[in-house]
Amino acid sequence: MIAAPTPHLAVDLERMQANIARVAEAATARGIALRPHAKTHKTIEIGRMQLAAGAHGLTVATVGEAEALAEGGLDDLFIAYPLWIDAGRAARLSALAARGAAVSVGVDSVEGVARLVHAGLAGRIAVRVEVDAGHHRSGCAPAAAGEVASAAAQAGVEVEGVFSFPGHAYAPDAREQAARDEAHALTTAMLAMRAAGVDPMVVSGGSTPSFDASLGLDSPVTELRPGVSVFGDAQQWELGSARQEEIALTCHATVVSHAGGRLVLDAGSKVLGPDRAAWATGHGRLLDHPDARIVQLSEHHAVVEMPDALPALGSVVRVVPNHVCIAVNMVDELVVYDRGDDALPAARWRVAARGRNA
Amino acid sequence: MIAAPTPHLAVDLERMQANIARVAEAATARGIALRPHAKTHKTIEIGRMQLAAGAHGLTVATVGEAEALAEGGLDDLFIAYPLWIDAGRAARLSALAARGAAVSVGVDSVEGVARLVHAGLAGRIAVRVEVDAGHHRSGCAPAAAGEVASAAAQAGVEVEGVFSFPGHAYAPDAREQAARDEAHALTTAMLAMRAAGVDPMVVSGGSTPSFDASLGLDSPVTELRPGVSVFGDAQQWELGSARQEEIALTCHATVVSHAGGRLVLDAGSKVLGPDRAAWATGHGRLLDHPDARIVQLSEHHAVVEMPDALPALGSVVRVVPNHVCIAVNMVDELVVYDRGDDALPAARWRVAARGRNA
Repeated sequence: MIAAPTPHLAVDLERMQANIARVAEAATARGIALRPHAKTHKTIEIGRMQLAAGAHGLTVATVGEAEALAEGGLDDLFIAYPLWIDAGRAARLSALAARGAAVSVGVDSVEGVARLVHAGLAGRIAVRVEVDAGHHRSGCAPAAAGEVASAAAQAGVEVEGVFSFPGHAYAPDAREQAARDEAHALTTAMLAMRAAGVDPMVVSGGSTPSFDASLGLDSPVTELRPGVSVFGDAQQWELGSARQEEIALTCHATVVSHAGGRLVLDAGSKVLGPDRAAWATGHGRLLDHPDARIVQLSEHHAVVEMPDALPALGSVVRVVPNHVCIAVNMVDELVVYDRGDDALPAARWRVAARGRNA
Repeated sequence: MIAAPTPHLAVDLERMQANIARVAEAATARGIALRPHAKTHKTIEIGRMQLAAGAHGLTVATVGEAEALAEGGLDDLFIAYPLWIDAGRAARLSALAARGAAVSVGVDSVEGVARLVHAGLAGRIAVRVEVDAGHHRSGCAPAAAGEVASAAAQAGVEVEGVFSFPGHAYAPDAREQAARDEAHALTTAMLAMRAAGVDPMVVSGGSTPSFDASLGLDSPVTELRPGVSVFGDAQQWELGSARQEEIALTCHATVVSHAGGRLVLDAGSKVLGPDRAAWATGHGRLLDHPDARIVQLSEHHAVVEMPDALPALGSVVRVVPNHVCIAVNMVDELVVYDRGDDALPAARWRVAARGRNA
């Protein structure tokens, strides 16, 4: 295996396996099923490791991601998205079901149920009702879950359960409240569904930052869907939901300039991703220089300020992207290093579902 | 040609051709050469159109982009980046030169020159000295351009000229000052190079927002390298450097939810790009609803607030990404529509240099 040119995304295999094991053990200890969100890695090899560690299946966001994973034999999939079913998507979902994949999809409106029925998917594809747990994105109001669920049940659509995504956990000191909000929303939804005559078998919650808090709550959750925890990233590091020594994916980048007395790296927003939350301390971090910050990011340059002496021109540094899901989606392969041996990669894994937005 | 599923990036062919022609005519009228930055489109078909309209060559940011374009026959290329030449990059640049491509690269330090010479590229690859025109990224101080240029010349490296990128034009009301800063920096650099015995043939400036202002100045610029102007995007719309009716690339997205009385679209940061400058009014715009704003963006959801009545569930809207270069780099193909006929695409173009970061 030859050395990879910079910039490239590098996986620390040992750390990643430890992350997979830690999350699986924590869920198992509470009797909660794990269905990791594969949008983070989009990679067959990693999905297999998550299942081997005890995950019951995987979560995806799009039909295209489901197709790419099923192609690799990972076919117990929940598409956690209120899909609007047109003829093309109906045919693709039918094809997945026909090949034996167990696929369920999100739905957050009576109209969405009607589309699914109109497309002939009743009896072939199960649904889970999406409720808004405080992130205010998609998802019906928790109290409306009964209406959506009973519309589905009456039309012959199997209602597998209810789910939410507490995305408002992505803010400083917000993780515990977001987990409580989600538990409350899912309880309300579950009661509304039962009142409408539909008993949700699966009550599914999400998110890496809220994961630990969700496990510690008295909550109706039967399943959790963390994504980022497989790698960690600078956002999780800053939120306190990943420790520095747990970060398993970095971008290897070369120092190309010392212009202006700062470090300029050949990794930019086209490999790190341009994500920068309002609360982030910069555009990314350096794994081996915790006090360094990317203060300026363009497509192929990261400008770094750091109190330490600048690494030499031509040296390689490890950059922690702010949001790893975006970074992974921009590369065709992940370069895998084993046991910290950074000289030569042990493997290259194809990002099989990269770019599968539709 | 069948309809493409949403979300997908759609090119309005007529508008794009008008943009290419307008920029080419403006440069030609001032006797300034045009070398558009192909990082924006990464597409062979569009590069060919730019050359047919009068561009003298194309600009790229990486060796990988140069390889992908040369593969498609576009081989007069300037890599506008202070490459750090290792053995792998040296071999790849040599291979490009051996196949007859005219490739020049950026350099901003004496050490960078030494690397290039050490790698055996003197006499095969020309350089342009990069100077900092106020964006404070890479590029040496303008007065130091002579030192870098004479190091190159003395080592037998052809010094083609000098260049800068006035990226600080990407801010409200900053375009004219940035163009003046660039003209000043390039003048200083040119004089420093001449004093060191190296006469720069090419004096190259950049950027879409500063383009018009650069043309209007008394400036030493002999070449300009706008990128985004081929498509326009929400940033340029808000900066005043693209008009609404010039925007030639949008993301076609489906309305999947009306949750919370807002529009939720199936286009998220994995197709629009997560870019949001501090001065941007949102995470993206809707082309046909100028008062609408994307107020919340996640990987597969855009949440839109708008004063107009919400478009119906299932309808398709046209989203203008904030930064088109990032959006294009996340998709494998561009779907091309001719004469505003949105029912069926006229062509699909491969984003040939997508992901070529190294």
